[in-house]
Amino acid sequence: MHRVKVRVVEDALDANNTIARANRDDFDRRDVTVVNLMSAPGAGKTTLLERVLGSLDGVRAGVLEGDVQGSYDADRLASLHVPVTQLNTDPGFGGECHLDANMVRSALPELPLEDIDLLVIENVGNLVCPAEFRVGEDARIMVSSVTEGEDKPLKYPLMFRTCELVVVNKIDLLPHLDFDLDALLANIEAVNPGVPRMLVSARTGEGVDAWRDWLLDQAAREVPA
Amino acid sequence: MHRVKVRVVEDALDANNTIARANRDDFDRRDVTVVNLMSAPGAGKTTLLERVLGSLDGVRAGVLEGDVQGSYDADRLASLHVPVTQLNTDPGFGGECHLDANMVRSALPELPLEDIDLLVIENVGNLVCPAEFRVGEDARIMVSSVTEGEDKPLKYPLMFRTCELVVVNKIDLLPHLDFDLDALLANIEAVNPGVPRMLVSARTGEGVDAWRDWLLDQAAREVPA
Repeated sequence: MHRVKVRVVEDALDANNTIARANRDDFDRRDVTVVNLMSAPGAGKTTLLERVLGSLDGVRAGVLEGDVQGSYDADRLASLHVPVTQLNTDPGFGGECHLDANMVRSALPELPLEDIDLLVIENVGNLVCPAEFRVGEDARIMVSSVTEGEDKPLKYPLMFRTCELVVVNKIDLLPHLDFDLDALLANIEAVNPGVPRMLVSARTGEGVDAWRDWLLDQAAREVPA
Repeated sequence: MHRVKVRVVEDALDANNTIARANRDDFDRRDVTVVNLMSAPGAGKTTLLERVLGSLDGVRAGVLEGDVQGSYDADRLASLHVPVTQLNTDPGFGGECHLDANMVRSALPELPLEDIDLLVIENVGNLVCPAEFRVGEDARIMVSSVTEGEDKPLKYPLMFRTCELVVVNKIDLLPHLDFDLDALLANIEAVNPGVPRMLVSARTGEGVDAWRDWLLDQAAREVPA
């Protein structure tokens, strides 16, 4: 039984990767850079976007908001005057816990790809399954809040291992926590050696310039021929 | 396709519920009260257990630790001298994001059910799928950290709707957050009217007595005939 189950899962992930490649081709054809923004619930993904999306120096951004239900984050971002498309996962399962390539593909007709340079896909808040499903992104960003503890890279290694950037958020709270920042950074390094990290506080704005510059840098990259 | 997928999922959940009932029968037969402890990653489940498991006034507790990988939380609890059994979900899927009834069933032979009165099942940190899978528990406890924001009950309603207690943790951080506690409590009330709530800080110990009393109260309940 167990081997059959693993085979079924592998087939499903293969099918997902095929659709992810088709998404990526569509994004590349329109010169749209796509980043997949992932974290645990409440780590600050939406606040990090609120901080930078209105000031991207001529780079035209759009957002695909993934949520089980509702449009709370999309409503927050609407005031920034960037196009935001809501994708809810609840028709599938009482709520899928992640976005997959097919869900993103189903949203493509709603996305103004001709009018944007950078698409941020805000995934469902979850440290497990979002890491397993590519959606056609150029890069993956993982937001880790210092309030979650130092051990998260060790407990959810796939998430930390498959990203191109780790944003350590809520550093304004460090004086009020029993938290060992060096231990967190060492744990990140252990599961994804050399991955870029940045320390930010979406609340106070500390480190937000570096976060904005990273997004601008991604958007400026040439699409590989 | 969509209807077929929903049917497959419904069948899977039906099968899960059947196994959950068998687990519950086994627990009842041994007079073991079972609570399923759920939250987002890093909300403080393990710290809340560290606070009370060593001082349960004669109630003999045991823990079933659910994690994708590793035994970090089980190692933390070992010093309390309660029996702790580790259950890893990674053989199934690059890491299942929740416990299901069959996983718990597979761990039953490892659990010293004859020697305990209260079994705490610490689920995988995730606000979506753990809510969908009963494991044979008598009661579900949801831990919500104030650092996660006020909107979580609205974004992950099934989790908040299917629990018997909401523990609002990390209240020692309230002075340092832009957080509206009344809004969180109103959102909890909106999705699960009347559900008991308690405000605690596992870090400072505030409210921990009420948390211990709630567990003792559960353990003292008669098993329905």
